[in-house]
Amino acid sequence: MVSRHISKRLLNYRSALVQLKKMGFDYVFSKTIGEETGVSSDVVRKDFSNMEIRGKRKVGYKVDDLITKLDEMFGKTCCFEIIVVGIGNIGKALTKYENYLSDRIKIKAGFDINPSRINVDNKIPILHFDEVETFVKENDIKVAVVTVPEISAQLVCNKLVECGIKGILNFAPVMLKVPDDVFVKNISFADEITRVFYHAKVN
Amino acid sequence: MVSRHISKRLLNYRSALVQLKKMGFDYVFSKTIGEETGVSSDVVRKDFSNMEIRGKRKVGYKVDDLITKLDEMFGKTCCFEIIVVGIGNIGKALTKYENYLSDRIKIKAGFDINPSRINVDNKIPILHFDEVETFVKENDIKVAVVTVPEISAQLVCNKLVECGIKGILNFAPVMLKVPDDVFVKNISFADEITRVFYHAKVN
Repeated sequence: MVSRHISKRLLNYRSALVQLKKMGFDYVFSKTIGEETGVSSDVVRKDFSNMEIRGKRKVGYKVDDLITKLDEMFGKTCCFEIIVVGIGNIGKALTKYENYLSDRIKIKAGFDINPSRINVDNKIPILHFDEVETFVKENDIKVAVVTVPEISAQLVCNKLVECGIKGILNFAPVMLKVPDDVFVKNISFADEITRVFYHAKVN
Repeated sequence: MVSRHISKRLLNYRSALVQLKKMGFDYVFSKTIGEETGVSSDVVRKDFSNMEIRGKRKVGYKVDDLITKLDEMFGKTCCFEIIVVGIGNIGKALTKYENYLSDRIKIKAGFDINPSRINVDNKIPILHFDEVETFVKENDIKVAVVTVPEISAQLVCNKLVECGIKGILNFAPVMLKVPDDVFVKNISFADEITRVFYHAKVN
């Protein structure tokens, strides 16, 4: 189990590798991966060496091998199955544009309490939140994306934990409280923008 | 200038402190801040000590003082002024719901190339992307959020850099190439969800 910091870096490598593959690269040098992800080639080589991946002199690493190794590390199945709770603008972006999620993540259903958003005939069915417990249990879902308003986020979170959800990606601007065995990653647009200002040295 | 890793942690403290303040806390212990943000109280104390902030025995830290110090560190003005390029679902979420951004970040305008999305009478005006250069220069904008489709992201990015933008928060699922003096933070929903799976140990 690597730290969050490193897992983030490895996932950046993966994104860069997928891009490089699309651009037609079969082999890459650590330097190229480093340039694409903002780290030194030494760090790239060390990370891969820790994963027991070695490149060839003058040829570099095989792109497909690296992607396969990273995929093995981050989950052996081809699909991560999730649900999305809250079909406002962000929920819509996730459920409508598959490019945001890549081929490895599959949204099994969306949930909302607004009847006008419910649509069982959708490619990704949008169900009433009352059905979440049955759905999560029947489909053995363990991870949810929460994109509900601030005011209802903690209640939604409590319900999801009760259903057996173990991981939450939270877009609501509130820190969710969960038991120790549940992992929450908060995405705060405000914090991310503040960080951009800080690092862009424009303030 | 602290590292990206630490700046992320400090911004987590800030979010937690704002929540605690809303809940009526005037003083907090490092332990409480640590619990809210997922780090040990030692790390919290060390971070504040590095910022020359000290708590009082048996009372803790004054919430307002901490928020003020953090705000000083992340920018002295009350407002970070930004533009949003691409008014699809995510762009809409950002321009419509101010809760996502907090009182410290102000979207000065949105930009799109789709005529049906342009609306100069909006509270946040939505302008044609052709006007971005004039707007950015006249309003001295340095940071942009990019929420355009993958295929146009690099072109939009190039144009923004040409206009003088120094920081970009990018939601498009592509690694943007920028000059060394421009900072890009990529938000990849796919990577964040993969990380949640990894840390929730459900794969």
